[in-house]
Amino acid sequence: MSQDSKPYKLAVKAVIADEEGRCLLIRRSARSRYFPGQWEWPGGKVDPGEDFADALVREVHEETGLSVAITGLVGAVHSEMPTAHVILLCLSAEIVGGEIRMSEEHEEYAWVPWADFPQWELAEQNSTLMLDWARARSEES
Amino acid sequence: MSQDSKPYKLAVKAVIADEEGRCLLIRRSARSRYFPGQWEWPGGKVDPGEDFADALVREVHEETGLSVAITGLVGAVHSEMPTAHVILLCLSAEIVGGEIRMSEEHEEYAWVPWADFPQWELAEQNSTLMLDWARARSEES
Repeated sequence: MSQDSKPYKLAVKAVIADEEGRCLLIRRSARSRYFPGQWEWPGGKVDPGEDFADALVREVHEETGLSVAITGLVGAVHSEMPTAHVILLCLSAEIVGGEIRMSEEHEEYAWVPWADFPQWELAEQNSTLMLDWARARSEES
Repeated sequence: MSQDSKPYKLAVKAVIADEEGRCLLIRRSARSRYFPGQWEWPGGKVDPGEDFADALVREVHEETGLSVAITGLVGAVHSEMPTAHVILLCLSAEIVGGEIRMSEEHEEYAWVPWADFPQWELAEQNSTLMLDWARARSEES
């Protein structure tokens, strides 16, 4: 691992589960520049000057209509993009308000049982962490 | 994992290794409020409005006198403190300038071979990640 000229950027993702052991996934638009049609945890880039926790709440609300509060850490992933290194910080969150509605960036949503994760086309950026986390949750239940 | 009233704060830690497979650890002051005398990776809290990568560079310089550049991701850890949940984001970094000098927060520094990590009194906050990372690096060599 040696330095290159790309900056490191921080993004946040929310892992939102319901009481039945299902996790919220949203599907990227088929017109997305990156990872079109893939299913992902809601979230996005931390804006300049923005607190990471505020960014998570903002992005989840923009993408899903839901209000959430952070409850813990899931893990972190490094994703190399064309112009930047992105550190994806994935946090567990619970719904504290709102109703689900999709933005233009995503086409649909689904509540996916942890055990079913391997059957979904998951976002390449962090599919390994998504599968590992889902497997561990699935084995807990 | 359910929400409580404590805010989530972000901190960053730098994992700096030399060409001989040794890693820089610094020892917290015996007068530190938390984890006195324990050995840790340099780093600290991200200030309000501050970019996480800038925070890493600033904290490492303040604590060690070294200038560093991020080279990758090591991992993330959740640490519950009395008034906040702290997410410790640990990043690998390389030295690009400076000479080592300690601030008042730390008493000494050491270049520790990966294989020797289990013999050191590591910072409780992230000792598991430190040991896991060191073991993996040690097995690589």
